[in-house]
Amino acid sequence: MSDRRALVISAHSADFVWRCGGAIALHQARGVEVTVVCLSYGERGESAKLWKQEGMTLEKVKAAREEEARNAAAALGVRDIRFFDLGDYPLELDRAAKDRLVDVIREVQPAFILTHSKYDPYNTDHMYACEVTLECRMIAQAWGHNPGEKVLGAPQVYLFEPHQTEQMGWKPDVFLDISEVWDRKRAAIECMQGQEHLWDYYTNVAENRGNHFRRNSGGQSGGRNATHAEGFQSIFPRTVDEL
Amino acid sequence: MSDRRALVISAHSADFVWRCGGAIALHQARGVEVTVVCLSYGERGESAKLWKQEGMTLEKVKAAREEEARNAAAALGVRDIRFFDLGDYPLELDRAAKDRLVDVIREVQPAFILTHSKYDPYNTDHMYACEVTLECRMIAQAWGHNPGEKVLGAPQVYLFEPHQTEQMGWKPDVFLDISEVWDRKRAAIECMQGQEHLWDYYTNVAENRGNHFRRNSGGQSGGRNATHAEGFQSIFPRTVDEL
Amino acid sequence: MSDRRALVISAHSADFVWRCGGAIALHQARGVEVTVVCLSYGERGESAKLWKQEGMTLEKVKAAREEEARNAAAALGVRDIRFFDLGDYPLELDRAAKDRLVDVIREVQPAFILTHSKYDPYNTDHMYACEVTLECRMIAQAWGHNPGEKVLGAPQVYLFEPHQTEQMGWKPDVFLDISEVWDRKRAAIECMQGQEHLWDYYTNVAENRGNHFRRNSGGQSGGRNATHAEGFQSIFPRTVDEL
Amino acid sequence: MSDRRALVISAHSADFVWRCGGAIALHQARGVEVTVVCLSYGERGESAKLWKQEGMTLEKVKAAREEEARNAAAALGVRDIRFFDLGDYPLELDRAAKDRLVDVIREVQPAFILTHSKYDPYNTDHMYACEVTLECRMIAQAWGHNPGEKVLGAPQVYLFEPHQTEQMGWKPDVFLDISEVWDRKRAAIECMQGQEHLWDYYTNVAENRGNHFRRNSGGQSGGRNATHAEGFQSIFPRTVDEL
Amino acid sequence: MSDRRALVISAHSADFVWRCGGAIALHQARGVEVTVVCLSYGERGESAKLWKQEGMTLEKVKAAREEEARNAAAALGVRDIRFFDLGDYPLELDRAAKDRLVDVIREVQPAFILTHSKYDPYNTDHMYACEVTLECRMIAQAWGHNPGEKVLGAPQVYLFEPHQTEQMGWKPDVFLDISEVWDRKRAAIECMQGQEHLWDYYTNVAENRGNHFRRNSGGQSGGRNATHAEGFQSIFPRTVDEL
Amino acid sequence: MSDRRALVISAHSADFVWRCGGAIALHQARGVEVTVVCLSYGERGESAKLWKQEGMTLEKVKAAREEEARNAAAALGVRDIRFFDLGDYPLELDRAAKDRLVDVIREVQPAFILTHSKYDPYNTDHMYACEVTLECRMIAQAWGHNPGEKVLGAPQVYLFEPHQTEQMGWKPDVFLDISEVWDRKRAAIECMQGQEHLWDYYTNVAENRGNHFRRNSGGQSGGRNATHAEGFQSIFPRTVDEL
Repeated sequence: MSDRRALVISAHSADFVWRCGGAIALHQARGVEVTVVCLSYGERGESAKLWKQEGMTLEKVKAAREEEARNAAAALGVRDIRFFDLGDYPLELDRAAKDRLVDVIREVQPAFILTHSKYDPYNTDHMYACEVTLECRMIAQAWGHNPGEKVLGAPQVYLFEPHQTEQMGWKPDVFLDISEVWDRKRAAIECMQGQEHLWDYYTNVAENRGNHFRRNSGGQSGGRNATHAEGFQSIFPRTVDEL
Repeated sequence: MSDRRALVISAHSADFVWRCGGAIALHQARGVEVTVVCLSYGERGESAKLWKQEGMTLEKVKAAREEEARNAAAALGVRDIRFFDLGDYPLELDRAAKDRLVDVIREVQPAFILTHSKYDPYNTDHMYACEVTLECRMIAQAWGHNPGEKVLGAPQVYLFEPHQTEQMGWKPDVFLDISEVWDRKRAAIECMQGQEHLWDYYTNVAENRGNHFRRNSGGQSGGRNATHAEGFQSIFPRTVDEL
Repeated sequence: MSDRRALVISAHSADFVWRCGGAIALHQARGVEVTVVCLSYGERGESAKLWKQEGMTLEKVKAAREEEARNAAAALGVRDIRFFDLGDYPLELDRAAKDRLVDVIREVQPAFILTHSKYDPYNTDHMYACEVTLECRMIAQAWGHNPGEKVLGAPQVYLFEPHQTEQMGWKPDVFLDISEVWDRKRAAIECMQGQEHLWDYYTNVAENRGNHFRRNSGGQSGGRNATHAEGFQSIFPRTVDEL
Repeated sequence: MSDRRALVISAHSADFVWRCGGAIALHQARGVEVTVVCLSYGERGESAKLWKQEGMTLEKVKAAREEEARNAAAALGVRDIRFFDLGDYPLELDRAAKDRLVDVIREVQPAFILTHSKYDPYNTDHMYACEVTLECRMIAQAWGHNPGEKVLGAPQVYLFEPHQTEQMGWKPDVFLDISEVWDRKRAAIECMQGQEHLWDYYTNVAENRGNHFRRNSGGQSGGRNATHAEGFQSIFPRTVDEL
Repeated sequence: MSDRRALVISAHSADFVWRCGGAIALHQARGVEVTVVCLSYGERGESAKLWKQEGMTLEKVKAAREEEARNAAAALGVRDIRFFDLGDYPLELDRAAKDRLVDVIREVQPAFILTHSKYDPYNTDHMYACEVTLECRMIAQAWGHNPGEKVLGAPQVYLFEPHQTEQMGWKPDVFLDISEVWDRKRAAIECMQGQEHLWDYYTNVAENRGNHFRRNSGGQSGGRNATHAEGFQSIFPRTVDEL
Repeated sequence: MSDRRALVISAHSADFVWRCGGAIALHQARGVEVTVVCLSYGERGESAKLWKQEGMTLEKVKAAREEEARNAAAALGVRDIRFFDLGDYPLELDRAAKDRLVDVIREVQPAFILTHSKYDPYNTDHMYACEVTLECRMIAQAWGHNPGEKVLGAPQVYLFEPHQTEQMGWKPDVFLDISEVWDRKRAAIECMQGQEHLWDYYTNVAENRGNHFRRNSGGQSGGRNATHAEGFQSIFPRTVDEL
């Protein structure tokens, strides 16, 4: 059992599944507890299928989205998922909401944080989530913020894969082999009943990232035979003992 | 003892000392054999002090530079240094010279390669060395190049620190703790009699990169107390089992 | 008559004239109704000439600017210009103002939107207008925003030409031939009594963009003989049936 | 029947299939004659499977690769494919080879050219092909090059999709709907017997680019139901009559 | 005596010392009055050493930080330092605070402004200070802001050196020789009792920037023998009479 | 009389006129001797009008282009113009040609060098001229290149304005007031009989750069009333005594 923990900051309640479900399942399987924070349910902007149903209300959408997210989290082995219910399209965090996020960061003391890309002209909630993550990470590092609490170290922030990567200027610098937990990720994906049009899309992504893993680990001359992978972009430099 | 090997491709015969002497000494100390290729001696462009001496000739400069480089390599624990003597300012590799470099790459089968930054308006030899390294890495991966030889896998290419990093668009994504071998790097630096004006410069760099290591490994909340470090920029994404 | 419509989002009340007056006149001439939203009058920051007059007040400046803008819009054939009067230097939109803009976007259902560049260190209102446009476009696409309303598709957002293009990192990827409506654009420009120092500037721009149109459409080997043009930078990829 | 023609410049003999087979088939189907130039066979660097066979020689590899390429071209409806046989890993064009390419460009007088991305640290042949294309396009536009010949206009250069797009800094600005010719592209792909490991990879790519086409043409509010697409990055600005 | 004045906008009360203490001392020594605005004390986020003391309170930290900053300012020859006390981690300026900053800008009418880099993922206060500076500079240029006041011209904004320059995308385009005032800068640095771990760091920076000054002013062929320097990145183009 | 000298490296024989004719005339007027090197005549690629004449030959084109360039140089006050006659479209320098350029650089010992932009997809000769300039500057700085000669210091390299600046990624960081020599630049422009279609284009450019000069020197609050200007992008950082 590891005593490392990890934190996922997801703008909407389904993002963590598509974008880093494999990383979550893999780390959980290795004893790294992963906390997932869903800042909103994506209830206004990412629930088209639900809204097309007769008699739909905001509360019903949120309930349905929460249930899907809880099911997906369970499929990934997550024991700690939290819904901040801050609204979407646009997502906005006032000072209290930010402090709440800082509290979670300090409580979890994550070895690394996973969140959205820096730029996204299609979805400004996504880039806002990244911006807020960096701000709250900084506050969690401040000795004068709630003095006496354990101050945060310097966890890496990994940006998970956005939709249409090239438009977001997102460039992965690390590929994670998720072959052994692919079944769990696919199961979690299938919990997302409202976004069935994305199931095969993200399956294709995982397969093609598997190709990238194989190629970058040696290709036909010694590459590892990963079938599925996920890519991430690091914000901060790594510190190592050996290259 | 590791069976990993590493390869340094240095445009001029002193570059490997300033830019990755710590990485070399550290890996040698851990049983990773490091091969250093000096494409030229830097005899025309990086030997001002020698040229100011009476009666200097190109051959004398080259001999002096080679001796300095051999001494520095020894100080770092290197057992395999090779001088291609291709000329500098400008450095140029014809097909035969490239094939010779490919041969070394295939012979060494490095786990990683260290070379110069992608851009350098002050020193076009440096960026040319990077360009040639990528080309030769590609050729070494070709199954149809000298069929029957062991084909290269996909070693990382780390770009070591140039002078005036910001002007070169060089951004380190990994810091290596070289505290335990700093004495060796300083000793190697002091072998460079012709460039004494750079001794303190690169000592300052190593100290300040130590600060960056401490900051990025946790700072005042758990950072490692590295005194000296080196920074590197990766060209290719990493493949990992865990974040 | 086309049933396509277009929307211009202008930070200050004169921007639409200098930056896309030709595009407006051309599309109006072809039956594409163009709606112009002026978020502010530019009353504080872009009315120096008026403020140099004795006894000037904010209300007088706004009235004068509105009149100029209405005259210019008429010269371009615009039938629908709206003044949000949100203040300038700085321009700020609260949630209600953003909702108002979303309402217009949904009402117009534009085939494309024209607005400011992403970066402008001289004029933060300009880049803010771009940021707000992307956010409001996203909200207009949300099925849960005012459920029952017609949801927005995926209109292109074209960034029109800023002053000092290179400083703004603005790079046009499309040139529009406005030769046939140049007279109207010049007439609209001359409605801007308070900024006479810019008349010739933007005439020069239109002529030189005409040169770029000719060059990029074939130059001396088949290029079209456009006399005036406007340039735009697209935010989103195009979807086509043929290259 | 169109009198437009198009030109594909492919570094190795399979690139045109994976990267723009759909565009080729679609334009051929519409009467746009597409000429494909294969600068090399990819005989050394992209034929690992062949080289693993007993008794293989360079000539046999080239013959096998040419046959595969001819079959694929036929499947796409191409009537004009030319093999320059200039060698690969590395690909190099001397002045005579460049003149030969200029001759083809002038002969074809393409409405547009398709070639590789500007940057590729994995495969320097690819970026070299792009560089050469721009140089030869420029020469083809020179009135003093073979005076009396028809001088080239200003055809767009589209960069087709590289492997690992984000590492190449490639950003598509246009998506082409290839749904109606997908079967032909898949048939052409299956002609590439030596690279079966890429068949599903590029099928996934085509499906996911179909998703991007749908999203960018309107998504759930009016997007076109494309099943497969290809993406391209334009080098030059477009010249248009209407936005 | 010059009648030029300068303005430093410092997010936290120590930034002006590390990042532009030399520029301040040098200009003061030449009769250019420099006004320093400290937007916050850095009391929460940059005072770890103080917070580790028993019985520390926010007010005590602020008092200690103000004293250090006043001492440092005095060491640099500054006569005008102002503390806005707006809070840090995060720093936030409401409209009133921005107006206060605009008032200072107009009062000082600086020939140039010094502030933080555009990007800083470690410290969002820093990039926010840059953003606010550009916004307030724009407002100070507005003829309709407090009509009757002297309107601001177009002062250069120099971005001073951040920590870990490469991570911030900061690229210096000007090096200032601070050799003659280095003793004053070091004295000011030593006033920062709470951040002793940075004394040698910024001494190393100044020495190495001295090397860059020598190299860029001519190196071994005529370079000036500067021992210490500071680097700055300009936001706006310069206007000159001679190259 | 200044003892500063300057050097212009022009890919084709007309570039120096459009792109830095004002800078040349201004410095000549102030006693700075400017040497102009024309690497080619632009005889193949930039002489369309001549080639459309009956019976034209390469030698006639070169003679005509040389005469135009000599006339333009005279109009600008240049006493030292040199024609390397290396061919264009493409321009290529072998080692001997580069050595010849190094010789000129060392002879002139320029305080600054003017040449083309780093990138130009329309005209690869232009970016090649920039690349060669940096390489030859480096060689001229080498103490071991022709030992005994006076070694070059560290002259700034200014990139002059390309056609279609935004497509070239060219960003001016300095504007030079050329109002007092505008008449001479216009006279030089009119010497270019073969490219009359560019006369007004570059007049518009000079006027609009004048606007940029006024704006950046203070605008309506103290800006200098320049009527014409030229923009330049610096490659290297400046070294200064005062900001």
